[in-house]
Amino acid sequence: MLTFRSATENDCCLILKFIRDLAAYEKMADQVVADENLLREWIFEKKKAEVLLACEEGKEVGFALYFHNFSTFLGRAGIYLEDLFVLPEYRGCGYGKALLKELARIAVERNCGRLEWWCLDWNRPSIDFYLSLGAQPMDEWTVYRMTGETLQRLAE
Amino acid sequence: MLTFRSATENDCCLILKFIRDLAAYEKMADQVVADENLLREWIFEKKKAEVLLACEEGKEVGFALYFHNFSTFLGRAGIYLEDLFVLPEYRGCGYGKALLKELARIAVERNCGRLEWWCLDWNRPSIDFYLSLGAQPMDEWTVYRMTGETLQRLAE
Repeated sequence: MLTFRSATENDCCLILKFIRDLAAYEKMADQVVADENLLREWIFEKKKAEVLLACEEGKEVGFALYFHNFSTFLGRAGIYLEDLFVLPEYRGCGYGKALLKELARIAVERNCGRLEWWCLDWNRPSIDFYLSLGAQPMDEWTVYRMTGETLQRLAE
Repeated sequence: MLTFRSATENDCCLILKFIRDLAAYEKMADQVVADENLLREWIFEKKKAEVLLACEEGKEVGFALYFHNFSTFLGRAGIYLEDLFVLPEYRGCGYGKALLKELARIAVERNCGRLEWWCLDWNRPSIDFYLSLGAQPMDEWTVYRMTGETLQRLAE
């Protein structure tokens, strides 16, 4: 039977494994510089994200890592889903949808206005899944990013 | 002389005005349901966002509303800029860049890995400005959103 639990700092090793597995699926494994200590510091000490684990008969089969964003139009927070991942051997059984449903429940419970996430444009199976749930693609927007030396230079 | 200050709950009226002005510029004024009480609750009591005000000789001429996001690849928080706005009569004088620079400084000071925001694809002046600063457009990603009844339905 599927159950959910909130991750604790004892789960950093598992969370890092899920992050790396998802990055490999997204063909971005070389971009992962996170380690267990960073996850412990930023998720569990500084509380900048939360992690929901999906468990089947005591085994963690997937995770959702999320945090609060904020909508100025709505004047309230939303939930932003940063990572959603289910172990390959457990895919196609509804675990991904169950994780999204649980996040939607948390969003409503906390009085949040939205649930948002982003998806790679080539990831057709995921896109079709999201559209089937009624999610709206924000096609007219593009995210811009500054990082590393570019960010340092602007800061000086 | 340009100075910055962090907004307090006494600034909710001004913040709401800036939010509405920006929404009008984005041709989305009808989507603003925020009011002063919601801003007070979610920004200053629940602390889900922060607001930086740009002041010229005592007058607030622009604002940046931001919050912390989280990168699983970097294993640390970033700063997400939700709204950036400068009064029309003060545009073209470097206030927008100064606000971005101040956010970059805060990001570096807090040891954050990234500064991110999104921009409407038709807003060419802003896009050219962001690219000139070295920002990277995340072209291969699309944000998906669930809100209102769709979110309620998934939560049930």
